Amino acid sequence: MFKLSRVLPLTSSSRHTAQLLEMVSSRKVEVRDSLRDGCGFTYSASISTATNNYAAKGYASDRVFAPYTVYKGKAAFSISPCLPTFTKLDSGTVVVDRRGSMMMTFMHSVGERKYDWEKRQRFALSATEVGSLITMGAQDSCEFFHDPSMLSSNAGQVRKSLSIKPHANNNGYFVSLTVVNNLLNTKDYFSVPITTAEFAVMKTACSFALPHIMGWDQITNQQSRDTVGLQPKGDSQVLDLEWEK
Amino acid sequence: MFKLSRVLPLTSSSRHTAQLLEMVSSRKVEVRDSLRDGCGFTYSASISTATNNYAAKGYASDRVFAPYTVYKGKAAFSISPCLPTFTKLDSGTVVVDRRGSMMMTFMHSVGERKYDWEKRQRFALSATEVGSLITMGAQDSCEFFHDPSMLSSNAGQVRKSLSIKPHANNNGYFVSLTVVNNLLNTKDYFSVPITTAEFAVMKTACSFALPHIMGWDQITNQQSRDTVGLQPKGDSQVLDLEWEK
Amino acid sequence: MFKLSRVLPLTSSSRHTAQLLEMVSSRKVEVRDSLRDGCGFTYSASISTATNNYAAKGYASDRVFAPYTVYKGKAAFSISPCLPTFTKLDSGTVVVDRRGSMMMTFMHSVGERKYDWEKRQRFALSATEVGSLITMGAQDSCEFFHDPSMLSSNAGQVRKSLSIKPHANNNGYFVSLTVVNNLLNTKDYFSVPITTAEFAVMKTACSFALPHIMGWDQITNQQSRDTVGLQPKGDSQVLDLEWEK
Amino acid sequence: MFKLSRVLPLTSSSRHTAQLLEMVSSRKVEVRDSLRDGCGFTYSASISTATNNYAAKGYASDRVFAPYTVYKGKAAFSISPCLPTFTKLDSGTVVVDRRGSMMMTFMHSVGERKYDWEKRQRFALSATEVGSLITMGAQDSCEFFHDPSMLSSNAGQVRKSLSIKPHANNNGYFVSLTVVNNLLNTKDYFSVPITTAEFAVMKTACSFALPHIMGWDQITNQQSRDTVGLQPKGDSQVLDLEWEK
Repeated sequence: MFKLSRVLPLTSSSRHTAQLLEMVSSRKVEVRDSLRDGCGFTYSASISTATNNYAAKGYASDRVFAPYTVYKGKAAFSISPCLPTFTKLDSGTVVVDRRGSMMMTFMHSVGERKYDWEKRQRFALSATEVGSLITMGAQDSCEFFHDPSMLSSNAGQVRKSLSIKPHANNNGYFVSLTVVNNLLNTKDYFSVPITTAEFAVMKTACSFALPHIMGWDQITNQQSRDTVGLQPKGDSQVLDLEWEK
Repeated sequence: MFKLSRVLPLTSSSRHTAQLLEMVSSRKVEVRDSLRDGCGFTYSASISTATNNYAAKGYASDRVFAPYTVYKGKAAFSISPCLPTFTKLDSGTVVVDRRGSMMMTFMHSVGERKYDWEKRQRFALSATEVGSLITMGAQDSCEFFHDPSMLSSNAGQVRKSLSIKPHANNNGYFVSLTVVNNLLNTKDYFSVPITTAEFAVMKTACSFALPHIMGWDQITNQQSRDTVGLQPKGDSQVLDLEWEK
Repeated sequence: MFKLSRVLPLTSSSRHTAQLLEMVSSRKVEVRDSLRDGCGFTYSASISTATNNYAAKGYASDRVFAPYTVYKGKAAFSISPCLPTFTKLDSGTVVVDRRGSMMMTFMHSVGERKYDWEKRQRFALSATEVGSLITMGAQDSCEFFHDPSMLSSNAGQVRKSLSIKPHANNNGYFVSLTVVNNLLNTKDYFSVPITTAEFAVMKTACSFALPHIMGWDQITNQQSRDTVGLQPKGDSQVLDLEWEK
Repeated sequence: MFKLSRVLPLTSSSRHTAQLLEMVSSRKVEVRDSLRDGCGFTYSASISTATNNYAAKGYASDRVFAPYTVYKGKAAFSISPCLPTFTKLDSGTVVVDRRGSMMMTFMHSVGERKYDWEKRQRFALSATEVGSLITMGAQDSCEFFHDPSMLSSNAGQVRKSLSIKPHANNNGYFVSLTVVNNLLNTKDYFSVPITTAEFAVMKTACSFALPHIMGWDQITNQQSRDTVGLQPKGDSQVLDLEWEK
């Protein structure tokens, strides 16, 4: 385990990332797994074998990697947008296939500036959960419960809960994740104190990302692709959208 | 009617959508109607015959479909941006032909996780109505009245009202739509309770969408298309915009 | 004058616009003047002779026209972003040549749904004035004073003031423009009551437009044009921005 | 020194900029230094020799220059986004190499409308520091401390602190920078009073810029480059992001 924990030089998250990627790129099996989650965030989705597969599917071969990470004494977490995936129907219509989310990843500290990447835990905030987060006031708190195996035979075997609670002294919050896994018979707990400034970054960045994880940027971008969606002149009488079915 | 109601698996709205689209694509007449509303939101505007027509008009053949939907016990509603259409004048000027809106679609529940798509009702929020929505405080409420046949011979025959009212317990709102149709002699009522988190998503997503339904994104995008709208150097004395007529 | 006043069908601002453009396009001299102000907003900058000139300068030949207009009993005003113009130096650097603004245009009512376009008056809000507007609370008011001839021989001859003051009943504002022109020996006054919803649209749309009239969207767009502004690998040690001069 | 101070005509920041650029372009050595910081903001990064180097690296040859500047009696400061730089790994993954920031530049007044560009001092706000700024209330204040030589042999030799404190009369703030340089044995102090309107512009523009200096716009732009990141139909079962490692 210790051989897998990483030095995180606070002055450069990217070098750290690079190291992680080299490390990950040697674990082919895991790569193929996480590849399937189609999320630009996951470290393993970023490595070369992965991006080659993507290229085969017509993806850009580049994956941009820019999480916002909060490093604290006992644990760290990062957050990054995970875009929705789309499916094209025979009709040519593009529909959301899997919804986007804000992916949070937690790591334990295992020494000065060392965090245990191997034992990380993840929590994917839905659009509505992001709505809770960005609307929180200084006194508010929120808690979310997930069952990653919901609707599968393992339903209830793994329970995750994320909570955001204000500090007693009212300047900042505790961001905590609990993961109870009855399959592995483990219980995991992370708690990261954040400042109001760090929470403001999360709120502003999540507000920016929300329409993107909802896929609405793809709706509003359509017109640019349609050269301003012109209609032939003359065909311009006003029709009532509500009237039609 | 029951044969038309759909299972909505909450874990995947897209599969549901796909089913709807197959279903709709068999009803040619309706398709041609709703095609004319030119709004990326409508289900039927998305089917293949539709997109072919679009292609003929120089539209992208893809239509992206990503509504934000709130499913509750008795009813559900979805909301999605409906972009403005533009007309190009002989002068080359592009003007808004029909204004954009935020399209809301309501459906009754007709059983566990079943909603009656056939009897849906729609309500298109104007830019100013969106302004009311995004400025609402926790205690505020608002109500909008539409007559889809306004200025036509059927004026007053159909009356729609949408209201958003805070819960008594002050955490969330009721979103309700009433449609009185004297032509069909029907009265329809939908009410969907939403949480503050769901309302926060609506506010944030509508704030994002507002400049797009106003067409302002097309104004601000012009310069990118103009390669930063450069002027030949020398022709750069400052002129007073206000002074000119 | 009356022959110049226009019917403004509230259900379609664009047809109105079209008429105005035909009307304007016959006044060549004025066209050439207002062409020079390079602002996508001005009606006359949108007509064909204008766009031809633009094309000659490498502009897109299309001009998108989508003001937000508030029509009230005695007067109307519209607001629309007016993008900055840029100059390219011999060095290849692109600098702001004339700052952008939010252009407001006021018209008097001259009968039911008729507004006098010929006697319109304009007021261009600077970025900082937009800052005042978007930060206004329900009780706040603001007033701006402009001298379009500032620094010219006509300094002080024309004085414009725009004020935004809350209604007594505290739901909405009065938006008023006064123009005193000692050259023409005229005094002009417009006052348009707006609702909180209409003001919310103005605030949200102006907040969206602000970075664009500042030209910051051109800074943040650079990287996309630079294919994510990659640096050759290896040349990636962290340098201190503050240290350098 | 005086020969280096510049007239800043308040009606046109760009002409001023042009002059500065000519001036800077004669100082080759400094150019090469500041070129390396890769920030579109720095004056010297904008000059021709610079942009030629950039072009050689596949950069766009244009650099857009549009700071927001507040000129006051004793000093002035400007603020502008400084985008992150990225490194492409052999794997094809693009990672943040140096984080972006909001670059503030302070200059002393050296006469009516003259500011001493040569003795400017800079302070680069990190994403989290921007979070503090945009979340400040009317009564709040904040202070940041930087050591540009942190982790180098000169650590502690230069200390910078930026503070933003509300006016006593509660309409606006003082933005102050102190720089103590033990290497040059100098102490420098700037203080610029700003109005609530000017601060609102800073907050709104910084909120707009924050996702860009974090590099999140590059994440959300990926999909557009991926033509909506389509997956082949059929490969669309929902996978649980949290479940995977």
